[in-house]
Formats: sequence, C-alpha cells, structure tokens
Amino acid sequence: MALEKFTRPVGIMRYDGAGVGVPSQDDLAVEEPLEIRVGGRSVAVVMRTPGHDRELAAGFLVTEGILRRREQVLDMVFCTSATGVGEAAEARENGLDVLLAPDVTVDWSRLTRNVFTSSSCGICSKASIAAVRGQFPPITSGLVPRREVLVALPDRLLATQGGYAATGGLHASALFDEAGRLIVSREDVGRHNALDKVVGHAFFAERLPLAGRILLVSGRVSFEIMQKALAAGVPCVAAISAPTSAAVEFARESGQVLVGFLRGARMNVYAGTLAG
Amino acid sequence: MALEKFTRPVGIMRYDGAGVGVPSQDDLAVEEPLEIRVGGRSVAVVMRTPGHDRELAAGFLVTEGILRRREQVLDMVFCTSATGVGEAAEARENGLDVLLAPDVTVDWSRLTRNVFTSSSCGICSKASIAAVRGQFPPITSGLVPRREVLVALPDRLLATQGGYAATGGLHASALFDEAGRLIVSREDVGRHNALDKVVGHAFFAERLPLAGRILLVSGRVSFEIMQKALAAGVPCVAAISAPTSAAVEFARESGQVLVGFLRGARMNVYAGTLAG
Repeated sequence: MALEKFTRPVGIMRYDGAGVGVPSQDDLAVEEPLEIRVGGRSVAVVMRTPGHDRELAAGFLVTEGILRRREQVLDMVFCTSATGVGEAAEARENGLDVLLAPDVTVDWSRLTRNVFTSSSCGICSKASIAAVRGQFPPITSGLVPRREVLVALPDRLLATQGGYAATGGLHASALFDEAGRLIVSREDVGRHNALDKVVGHAFFAERLPLAGRILLVSGRVSFEIMQKALAAGVPCVAAISAPTSAAVEFARESGQVLVGFLRGARMNVYAGTLAG
Repeated sequence: MALEKFTRPVGIMRYDGAGVGVPSQDDLAVEEPLEIRVGGRSVAVVMRTPGHDRELAAGFLVTEGILRRREQVLDMVFCTSATGVGEAAEARENGLDVLLAPDVTVDWSRLTRNVFTSSSCGICSKASIAAVRGQFPPITSGLVPRREVLVALPDRLLATQGGYAATGGLHASALFDEAGRLIVSREDVGRHNALDKVVGHAFFAERLPLAGRILLVSGRVSFEIMQKALAAGVPCVAAISAPTSAAVEFARESGQVLVGFLRGARMNVYAGTLAG
C-alpha cells in the first residue's frame, strides 16, 4: 500500500518553541467515509482511511456475525454510479458492494449493532458480554503466549506503521503467530477499522477462526475490540495501552488472554496466564 | 465526581523489566453501557464511563440535532424497572430516560446517525461535511485565539484528569474561555462521550451555543469530533494529538479554528489564524 493513499499533505502554520509561526506543510491521516453495502443494501457508513477496503468490509461483516467463510462472498465491487462532477473519482471509491453467493442468507437483525439493547430497561456489561458470547463460538485453542515473544512485538508493529510515522494520526492492528512472526498489519484512523482489516485479511486467506494467533493493537482495548477479537476467534489480545473494565471482564469470561501496557519488557496480564 | 465511579480495581500479574511476574492490583477505567431513551423510546446505547450521565445524554442529543434548549427537557430519570438479581443496582444506572416538555416534537429521522448516507451510491467527505453543516447554524463568533493562551491549556487539562492519572485509559475534553480559564472538564473511556458531557454541561447551564469558547481534547480530532463541536457552536478546537484530513476540511469549511499537536510552546494551526 502506497503511503499516498494513507496520508494527505496540507499547508499549515507551525509554531515552534519560541512562538514563531512558520508556513509549513504537514501530512494528515486521510479520513473518508466508506458505505458498505450487501447486495445493494446499505448496511453501514464508516469513517476510515482508504486502502484495503475489501478487507475492511469483510472484517466488519465477520465481526458483526454476518459472514463466516470466504465462499459466502462472490465478489466485492466499488460502486460506479457516482455522478458528482470533480469529486466523482473519490466518491466512486467510497461505496463498496458485497455480492453474496446465491445460497447465503443474511440475518439482517444482527446488523442493528445493538447487541446490548434489551426490551426491559436495565442493561449492564455482564448482560452485554453474555449477548455477544452467545453469537460466536467460544475460544478453545488454549494458547498460552510466551512472555519473551510478547516483549518483541511492539517494535515489530512499529516497523509496519509507516502511516503513523508520517502523520501521528493512525492506529494499527497486527496479527502474529505463537513464535512472534508477523502475519499482517493494518493502519487506519479508526481503531476498529484497523482490526476489521486484519480480520478481513484472514477471511480472504481462509484462516478464520484465528486459533493460535496473537493480536496486538497500538492503543487501548475496549469492549468492542474484545468483541471483534472473539468474533474472529483470537485467543490472545495485547495492547500498548490500557484496557477498560468491560474489556477485562469480557476476556475473563470468554477465555481470552489479555495483556495491556506492553512496553519494553514490562506488561500487565489482565486475563489468562503467560508461559516463560 | 468521586474517582471510585471512574475506576475499578482488578487483580493482575505485573511483569517488570526483569521479566518477573508479581501479583498486583491495577485500576481500570470503568466502561459500562448506557441506554439513552427519549420518552421511553430507545435511541442509543453508548459504552461510557459512569458519571455525569445526564450531561452525556443531553450532549448526545444536542450534537445529534435533537435538543437545543434546556426548557425542552422536563426531567431525566434513571430507569427503575431493572429486574436482574444481584446486578440490579448497576443495571438501574445504565438506562436513562429523557422526558421532553409537552410541546417539543422530535425529528426521529435525525437519530439514524447516518448523515453521510445518500440514496445514490457514492459519498465523500465533502458531501458529508455539507450534510452536517446544513443541520446546524454556522460559526459566527469570529474568535481569534491567542497563542499564549493556548500554550497554557494542556497543563490545565492534565490537572483535571484524575481518572487518566489512575488508569491511563480515559480521554478528556474541556472548555476554556478566551482568557484560558477552565469552565468544565470531563473524562470518559470514549472520546465522543467526554465531549458530549462537556456539551451537556453547557446545555444545563444554558450556555449554548458556545461562542467565544475554546475546546481542548486530550487525543486526536476526527470528523465526528468537529461535527459535535459545530453542533455546540464551538469556534475553536485544540488537540494534544493529530487531526484527520476530514477534520481539517471540516474546520476550514465551517469557519472554525483548529489547532493540533499542542505540546509545550509548539502547535500546528490547521484552520483559521491565531493572535499574538
């Protein structure tokens, strides 16, 4: 992926430590809407960084519980009906239609993205976790990651973050095997999108569920990140920064290993145990 | 706000630089769902940090274009029909019903949160910005922030981030006046929630639109942050970290000042100009 698609130069005024403003140029992380359609039906609009859009759409649909296997998808095509003059080319790449195989039926009710909503008033993280866990198979791979493998991952992730180096505005998500070998890394302005792209990569490589894999995310870990990781069958999630209370609760109930504040040789293990 | 509501202690294994695991305790940023209802009708479930929930609901509804003035709201009540044994008390605080004044009518179509979606295939950030700008009054206050005022804000924000200091997992959003005096600061696991709480605070104080105010956010600035700032009438947005391309485009088209990478005496001005 060429860096040009991820970043966009813009003229700014840069003030240095002495308080002097200098006209300058800065590279921004590109954020554009992508409308995801399934069989012509609009299912979501996400603000994302262009690039790997088919992976993003596939990963989104996998983690929403709509897709499971590659053969369910016939093709994914960018819409060609954009009519806006001047911005037509850009707009054309912001709509992606997922064409399903003839025998695939979709449970549209899953797409409400309201797994938390109950008919009675009164919800909590416990009920939300139970609702998500009921949607996806449990983790059964029993991965016990090795401490010295985890320690090496942040530098390997950083080496793939060309867009972040250029802009300071992109999140990253990457998959590693048990030995710490990089499988795939993706960047996006949205944390969830970066993860969806990684899951979509595995979808097209027919590697779902991701048993025996370690997911590393560049930022924090929320409930929704854990939900997406479970949907993809990831047994171990590691993060450079903090997890939330709901993320820890989720990991413990779903049998996932959760590591946070992975920095240098230091780390916190919030769920599960390490080897070595 | 007591810190206990923001943070939750959890037992972990902490690995130090020498690779030795020690059973320890860590404070997590609390993340729980809040179901926002209007007149009994469920309009959204957000994953948020408990506390200032009425502000969150009000700010959410203001930035979605549903509410404008305090007199439109009769009351906001936590749901009392939770029946879950054991977790009843927790669940009871996770549903909030906004009761509207009798003469208030709601345009429910705004609540689809799909301002980007067009009926034709083909969308882009320009069209999305135009759609949002059509929904809210333009910025007319003409604030020209002073550089030396902006320089002082990050330390003042940090002084309010007790939850972040304890957990490393909370975002913050704060309002300042033109002289850099703090008006209100809020923390949340969600960047958008922290901003919604600040807007909700202004809603209850009857200070909307926020002419002459400077908004400072602890992280990055996306399209949606600018959208919420415009909805609240904020003329100047500053951030510790990077803006996205769509955020810069949005600020320039809506007449807002946008400052990024505000660190020490350094900053980048992406839209508008500074004084001093």
